[in-house]
Amino acid sequence: MMGRQQHQHQQKKALQVLSARFISSSDLTIELKTDKSDFENQPKKEDLVFGTTLSDHMLTIEWDKQNGWSPPKIIPYQDLKISPAASCLHYGLQCFEGMKAYRSLKDKDSIHLFRPDKNVERLKNSMRRLAMPGVDFDKDELIKLISELVKVDKDWIPEGEGYSLYIRPTVIATHRFLGVSPPDCLLLYVITSPVGPYYKTGFDPIRLTTDTDCVRAWPGGTGNAKCGGNYAATMKPAAEAAAKGYSQILWLFGENDEVTEVGAMNFFIYLINKETNRPELVTAPLTRGDILPGVTRSSILDLTRSWGDFDVSERYITMGEIKEASDENRLIEAFGCGTATVVSPVSCIQYKGKDISIPAVGELTQRVWDEIVGIQYRKIEAPPCTPDWIVEL
Amino acid sequence: MMGRQQHQHQQKKALQVLSARFISSSDLTIELKTDKSDFENQPKKEDLVFGTTLSDHMLTIEWDKQNGWSPPKIIPYQDLKISPAASCLHYGLQCFEGMKAYRSLKDKDSIHLFRPDKNVERLKNSMRRLAMPGVDFDKDELIKLISELVKVDKDWIPEGEGYSLYIRPTVIATHRFLGVSPPDCLLLYVITSPVGPYYKTGFDPIRLTTDTDCVRAWPGGTGNAKCGGNYAATMKPAAEAAAKGYSQILWLFGENDEVTEVGAMNFFIYLINKETNRPELVTAPLTRGDILPGVTRSSILDLTRSWGDFDVSERYITMGEIKEASDENRLIEAFGCGTATVVSPVSCIQYKGKDISIPAVGELTQRVWDEIVGIQYRKIEAPPCTPDWIVEL
Repeated sequence: MMGRQQHQHQQKKALQVLSARFISSSDLTIELKTDKSDFENQPKKEDLVFGTTLSDHMLTIEWDKQNGWSPPKIIPYQDLKISPAASCLHYGLQCFEGMKAYRSLKDKDSIHLFRPDKNVERLKNSMRRLAMPGVDFDKDELIKLISELVKVDKDWIPEGEGYSLYIRPTVIATHRFLGVSPPDCLLLYVITSPVGPYYKTGFDPIRLTTDTDCVRAWPGGTGNAKCGGNYAATMKPAAEAAAKGYSQILWLFGENDEVTEVGAMNFFIYLINKETNRPELVTAPLTRGDILPGVTRSSILDLTRSWGDFDVSERYITMGEIKEASDENRLIEAFGCGTATVVSPVSCIQYKGKDISIPAVGELTQRVWDEIVGIQYRKIEAPPCTPDWIVEL
Repeated sequence: MMGRQQHQHQQKKALQVLSARFISSSDLTIELKTDKSDFENQPKKEDLVFGTTLSDHMLTIEWDKQNGWSPPKIIPYQDLKISPAASCLHYGLQCFEGMKAYRSLKDKDSIHLFRPDKNVERLKNSMRRLAMPGVDFDKDELIKLISELVKVDKDWIPEGEGYSLYIRPTVIATHRFLGVSPPDCLLLYVITSPVGPYYKTGFDPIRLTTDTDCVRAWPGGTGNAKCGGNYAATMKPAAEAAAKGYSQILWLFGENDEVTEVGAMNFFIYLINKETNRPELVTAPLTRGDILPGVTRSSILDLTRSWGDFDVSERYITMGEIKEASDENRLIEAFGCGTATVVSPVSCIQYKGKDISIPAVGELTQRVWDEIVGIQYRKIEAPPCTPDWIVEL
């Protein structure tokens, strides 16, 4: 009896494998664009504006219930044909990643990615949170395909420090169904965009406000997934803050005004801890599920911990504690961080109508910048804590 | 001086009007579909599955910064061409409505909408919450255009009680930009879908669970806007609830487990109030901003208040209060409500691992159903509290 059950189980498993085709880089087909006019007419690298110039090719992989993942394709960049009833347009079934391909400053023909495994892992987590099927693909296969896309468009990667090819993997539900339900079919696609340095002439510190009624994320929500709904909610308060002269919102949570994120970045603050009297670098922890697990955040935590020069804490810090540290001259520096900017120093936080000033660009912000940018552009020897950070193509 | 300022103000206003073209039903152009095969091959009305059959035509109106709203078009239903970098696919910049066109039971050639002004008003509120531009259009113009679309596809409206043409107005950001910012261009479109009665053979009461770590909405979020992100977050917990035998989630909020909504519907509970000892119909209030202002919800509040037969309250009710009412035999009925189902009686709420039973379909649920369905299908004389509810085409 046991033998028969096992046999049935094996049969069932074999059927599942047959019916669920995984992402396979060996099935890739490439259709090259013949028209070179977009490439020839692209802006000079000094004139690039983030997210507006798109390169010549895109990667597409479809998933459906019957066939699983289709053979991946690299095709000329083109508009998508999407049903007006597709659930990506109604029910926010969409998630994405932001990552970059860099040229080494020492050898401009050497191209590499920075921690792509972290991005693909997070993409899979976002898909899980949105009940998207097909999530059990091998992440190395997707990294290989993204690498192929970058190689096809390698001439689009501008040279020089601060320049890179921004990569935007995206998964959308293409299910043509007006009911609210997990989708029957998906499209995973990757587009790329050449980008220049976020800061053209040295750091440009940002002024933050906390004075908004809006809340970015909530425990039990989707704040730790990189999905559309998290961003849609921030446009209006961000525009209101901009109208008052603040460049970003410092998002707070709860009765005690705990600091969570800044704009679309993670947030770090560096201060003298009142109890220990030692310098401490603080960022919000991931445990409550309302913080995006940023790749730059994780890299900064790894690096600064490896230095051992000050305490590094993942804990909630309240605006009250920040205000008190400011009043007692214990506030040293603060910065946002993310793939687009690396680090964004903070010069001011408006809280309850009053500005808390922060020494603009301090030693720590600069050191973090130098170290991460140094690793990303292969200017410096990567420290021992970073064995897999650079993936050469 | 005052005169000159006024003159300048008028000039500025005239320029604004010129540059911001509003939605105008008189600019409508109609391109009819010549191929009748979709119409001829549609399922029998008894076999319609909600949200899967789409009618022949759609309405499209584009907005961009330079030209404002473009002339509206009714065109054959077709896939949309969307840039893979469009912000509707990355940042959740999408909102929608659900409404219906009905045939009168007394005269099948008489077609009407139910409270379309409420839907268009809510669409505009959703657009505002998402910082979408172009929101200051005249809502009557959009209602006229939706009416024209329904008239073009009037043969798609099935006859009979419970049958209708479901209408899905949608606004998406078509801005081709990978930065997080309010969009430069939009597409407003409307598609329609013939639907049958939600209950084929009498009510089918739903079993709810509250046992999830997920939270649908929160103050300062987007719970009162009909935008994609609200729905994306619910697929996973809903699938988990379904696997445990519960058809929907009763969404709670806060430390006291206040009841907010059920699935994608508003929630009503009818009980004997402990303090007054009088029957009371309760639904969550709109004041905190985490409840979708449902059109069916509003209609039920108006109707039941006009009856004057029991107390009607917009207040938060906690699971503790519901549990206590159940223990003390004061719990009478509960139902969800929305455009798709009208009312969905609730037979059970799982809370902290235990099922609270509710008398399945009571007198009040039936009376609310009879009244609303009676008005929607023009079987009964509309009560005095409903002067504008029916809009004849």
